[in-house]
Amino acid sequence: QKQEEQTTLMKSLNRLWTLLAIVLVFLTPLAYVLTSSREHYKPLPDGTPQHQGVLLVCLGAFLGYFLVGFGLMFGTSAGGWIGTSSYLLSNDVADPNQAPLFPFAEFVLYQAGFTMLATLIIYSAIGKQLSAASHLLLAAFVGIILVPVFGHWAWAGQFIPGNKGWLEAAGFMDAAGSTTIHSVAAWFAFVLVWKLGRQHTEQASATKANDDAAYSSSAVLFLWLSWLGFTTGTLPISGNQIGSTMLNVVLAAAAAGLVAFLHYSFFHTGKGMIARALGGFVTGLVAVAASAHSLLFMEALVVGISAGLIHNLAFSMLRKQFLTQAWQSRAAYLVAIHGVGGVWGSLCVALLGSEGMFAMPNVALLLYQLQGIAVGLVYSVVLAQAAWMLLAFRQRTPIVAN
Amino acid sequence: QKQEEQTTLMKSLNRLWTLLAIVLVFLTPLAYVLTSSREHYKPLPDGTPQHQGVLLVCLGAFLGYFLVGFGLMFGTSAGGWIGTSSYLLSNDVADPNQAPLFPFAEFVLYQAGFTMLATLIIYSAIGKQLSAASHLLLAAFVGIILVPVFGHWAWAGQFIPGNKGWLEAAGFMDAAGSTTIHSVAAWFAFVLVWKLGRQHTEQASATKANDDAAYSSSAVLFLWLSWLGFTTGTLPISGNQIGSTMLNVVLAAAAAGLVAFLHYSFFHTGKGMIARALGGFVTGLVAVAASAHSLLFMEALVVGISAGLIHNLAFSMLRKQFLTQAWQSRAAYLVAIHGVGGVWGSLCVALLGSEGMFAMPNVALLLYQLQGIAVGLVYSVVLAQAAWMLLAFRQRTPIVAN
Amino acid sequence: QKQEEQTTLMKSLNRLWTLLAIVLVFLTPLAYVLTSSREHYKPLPDGTPQHQGVLLVCLGAFLGYFLVGFGLMFGTSAGGWIGTSSYLLSNDVADPNQAPLFPFAEFVLYQAGFTMLATLIIYSAIGKQLSAASHLLLAAFVGIILVPVFGHWAWAGQFIPGNKGWLEAAGFMDAAGSTTIHSVAAWFAFVLVWKLGRQHTEQASATKANDDAAYSSSAVLFLWLSWLGFTTGTLPISGNQIGSTMLNVVLAAAAAGLVAFLHYSFFHTGKGMIARALGGFVTGLVAVAASAHSLLFMEALVVGISAGLIHNLAFSMLRKQFLTQAWQSRAAYLVAIHGVGGVWGSLCVALLGSEGMFAMPNVALLLYQLQGIAVGLVYSVVLAQAAWMLLAFRQRTPIVAN
Repeated sequence: QKQEEQTTLMKSLNRLWTLLAIVLVFLTPLAYVLTSSREHYKPLPDGTPQHQGVLLVCLGAFLGYFLVGFGLMFGTSAGGWIGTSSYLLSNDVADPNQAPLFPFAEFVLYQAGFTMLATLIIYSAIGKQLSAASHLLLAAFVGIILVPVFGHWAWAGQFIPGNKGWLEAAGFMDAAGSTTIHSVAAWFAFVLVWKLGRQHTEQASATKANDDAAYSSSAVLFLWLSWLGFTTGTLPISGNQIGSTMLNVVLAAAAAGLVAFLHYSFFHTGKGMIARALGGFVTGLVAVAASAHSLLFMEALVVGISAGLIHNLAFSMLRKQFLTQAWQSRAAYLVAIHGVGGVWGSLCVALLGSEGMFAMPNVALLLYQLQGIAVGLVYSVVLAQAAWMLLAFRQRTPIVAN
Repeated sequence: QKQEEQTTLMKSLNRLWTLLAIVLVFLTPLAYVLTSSREHYKPLPDGTPQHQGVLLVCLGAFLGYFLVGFGLMFGTSAGGWIGTSSYLLSNDVADPNQAPLFPFAEFVLYQAGFTMLATLIIYSAIGKQLSAASHLLLAAFVGIILVPVFGHWAWAGQFIPGNKGWLEAAGFMDAAGSTTIHSVAAWFAFVLVWKLGRQHTEQASATKANDDAAYSSSAVLFLWLSWLGFTTGTLPISGNQIGSTMLNVVLAAAAAGLVAFLHYSFFHTGKGMIARALGGFVTGLVAVAASAHSLLFMEALVVGISAGLIHNLAFSMLRKQFLTQAWQSRAAYLVAIHGVGGVWGSLCVALLGSEGMFAMPNVALLLYQLQGIAVGLVYSVVLAQAAWMLLAFRQRTPIVAN
Repeated sequence: QKQEEQTTLMKSLNRLWTLLAIVLVFLTPLAYVLTSSREHYKPLPDGTPQHQGVLLVCLGAFLGYFLVGFGLMFGTSAGGWIGTSSYLLSNDVADPNQAPLFPFAEFVLYQAGFTMLATLIIYSAIGKQLSAASHLLLAAFVGIILVPVFGHWAWAGQFIPGNKGWLEAAGFMDAAGSTTIHSVAAWFAFVLVWKLGRQHTEQASATKANDDAAYSSSAVLFLWLSWLGFTTGTLPISGNQIGSTMLNVVLAAAAAGLVAFLHYSFFHTGKGMIARALGGFVTGLVAVAASAHSLLFMEALVVGISAGLIHNLAFSMLRKQFLTQAWQSRAAYLVAIHGVGGVWGSLCVALLGSEGMFAMPNVALLLYQLQGIAVGLVYSVVLAQAAWMLLAFRQRTPIVAN
């Protein structure tokens, strides 16, 4: 009976930790609201609704995820492909062998944070090119299908260990969503932004290209705080893992931001420097997400330094080759940060995640990770086509041709 | 002796939870500071001091509440009408039968969050019509009298169970302040704004009516986070209540925001949509506050959906009938959200709070709730008259005739 | 064995508290980002990079502190003068008699919050007078040398009790950094701002003098929240200390803000009132930091009231005598708040910190505190000279001559 009380106490402790993590991940929409603070300088006639559409996007994603998405993602698996229970927030785990690792409501809220994050990446990349209503529809699509289905493949076992998805069962590891959330959302956004761009006949105004950062300082700082929750929310409070995971996150982000700044300012002058620093910083966060719990401090620094360089190179390439119009600048940042950064993060799990300082990469794991990355890419492109057809009734012309 | 250690641990756990809740409720003033971000577009000569008066209002309410209000609200009850001990933060509970349920300093801080909230509702509704000094005086009035006296009637037993106020003893239930904080503050503000309006001879400029939302996105998101604290701060960390309460809050708010948006955009076009979504969202928060801990998830959705509709209808009616001047738009939003939404929330406790999915309403409780709501309304109107006289030396003309 | 489980639980509880405190102290950079919101009104060509340099400053301080500073500050002491182990985040405490009081990664993160704070005070005071790259260099200097060396003298025993620095061993007490962080940073900034001012030939435009507050409302509110972490992060969760420390912080800040507002508005009119209220508020936070855990509530009020008056007097004096140019207004605020307020806070430890309500001051302790304050002043001035030489290659002309 005393043992029982001990267990109750330890359970309450872990619950409390999860609650703190929920608060942290719920800071995410703040980051994206403040992202748009740049646009405050020239308020547009209908700029404000667009800006505040951030909230609307969250609402859409939230309700969709709660009512349908969560069941699809973490319900009893049909062959590792989709979940088939827990719809409408019914906590109906019958099989006692399938006891969940976390209390139901807390886990739903915590996971909803990841869905919000994916929705907001897509919202930010597209921006004013779709109306608020279209964004709402898109958000529902993301919360009901895009995140949950791939999420089931990669993460279903996080809730009920015996209920693994097929990718996870095949060996894919993605602790805090470098592929599952970031890359999937970024490729999805990339396809939509590219398609929207082909409808324009805009004269590419290359001079304006570097003007528009994807994040502002305050947005980056809120993301930083939310990351402390995203990467640690499912770790046990007893033991040293949470603290060192947080320290890894902070180290990687700081190194990435600094390297992106120094690399850019060594070759260029002027205005883009801070935008690169901010983008690099977030790329560091994204890249370290998948492996932060298993890295040593110096390894986290290496992840960060490489992420900073990768961000600058990926952005330049995307801007020159694919997203050349002025309004696509933000999308280029977001795809570099979340898409390319997410891929790099998923690879780092295999490259650096083994025990021991800079131990040899785990080759088998590297193949599993490559499989997961490739599946994520194909999946996102296919679903983006579906979403494009769904949006057929959207406004043909952009609301604001900036 | 081992039992004792267990109790110490459980006490520390609950203390830790309360500390997290304190941090969350202390986000409230941020919400109201960022509310005014709209006004950044056209900085007024003395706009900034007014904007920053938010902080001043908190200071006034804080000191008043700490030194006098808390004792009046939670001190040893004189017949259920007022508290008569614990002034100047002296923790002087002599009677061992009257042991408080929470540690003293933590409970004071947590409750101060509610007082700040009431003060800020009133501040926001009145806005630039009073000087900073008048706002300070008004805040002291709210922190010393308005919140504590009614708070004693409805909440005194929350701290020391044997020390119930008369409304509470009569059966009134108001867990997180739908009436005690929101309605009381909203009716109080309504009377003052209405009286201020009669002093103007402004030509009603109906065209500008929908321009001014009561909240901005970032404000709403901070309120959302603070609600996770307001609704759960006094719940025990062992057990599942905190998580499901939070999920109910999130569900109701999301449903309310979405319904308000869809309802409005179905009948109208244009600029008001996001303002309605934001207002509906907060109305959902207010309405669910009283019953979040006792609802099932689907019931919370129903509370949210109804709150969204009620917000739109109440705002339209207030704007057409009572608060028709341009500058009263924000007040109309706030009264619809906190006044009408608070009434609806207090009713939902009886309508939906019974055990079982959509069980029959508790008729006896419904009468108790109606009593509490009516008492709150009369109380606020009377005190608003008193405050009006107190402000007799206020500036006669508004600082800025916007 | 059961005892052991108890200990594990209590350790986890304290760890959880530290994690919450880390989140709170990490709100600091948000405060300084939002500080600059005033400048949003007139965006300068290169104003944005400067504004966002806040983030960059954090990165510099962070990496420097993690890789070098932390070891210098908390590593095995060489005669009480510098730490000589724990560089590059290696947790290499060999001696079992020297067990740290806190888990390593959590303590590093928590302390990094203080370093950020010092960096940001200096950044804010100097502002647009240095380029982003110079600020980065300066931040590294602060994170690697300025904070760690004095920090070792005053705080090294906080981590490993047997590893005291010389000031600490001599009796100096400075719980949350009134001298160690605030005064040291403020004197350092003062010297640099004063030297930068001598290079200008600006016509002192006294009329503009009161325009520029050091903080905006939202910045102050974030600082307020961070203070709840700064002052309590190392206190044990069992016992009542955390709650009453927080209440002391809130009381002192509220009283200081209110007194600064009332004092100023009694003698003057117009625009400066809110700036004084905000400055007074933060001075209250700074002053109470050193003694918040040992004061009674009414004593905290006295600290706050005196801090509010001291802020107004110190600011007026600094502005008239030393920092007379228009652009130095913000620096004058910051030196009054953090420098003078920090000195007053360190004195209050001895004046009011004894047990019992308003007990006689502890004269011996007062001398130790005076020693610490004087050492901090000399130390900062000397290091500011060093930093000045280090910045010899900085831009000679200010980026923006406002």
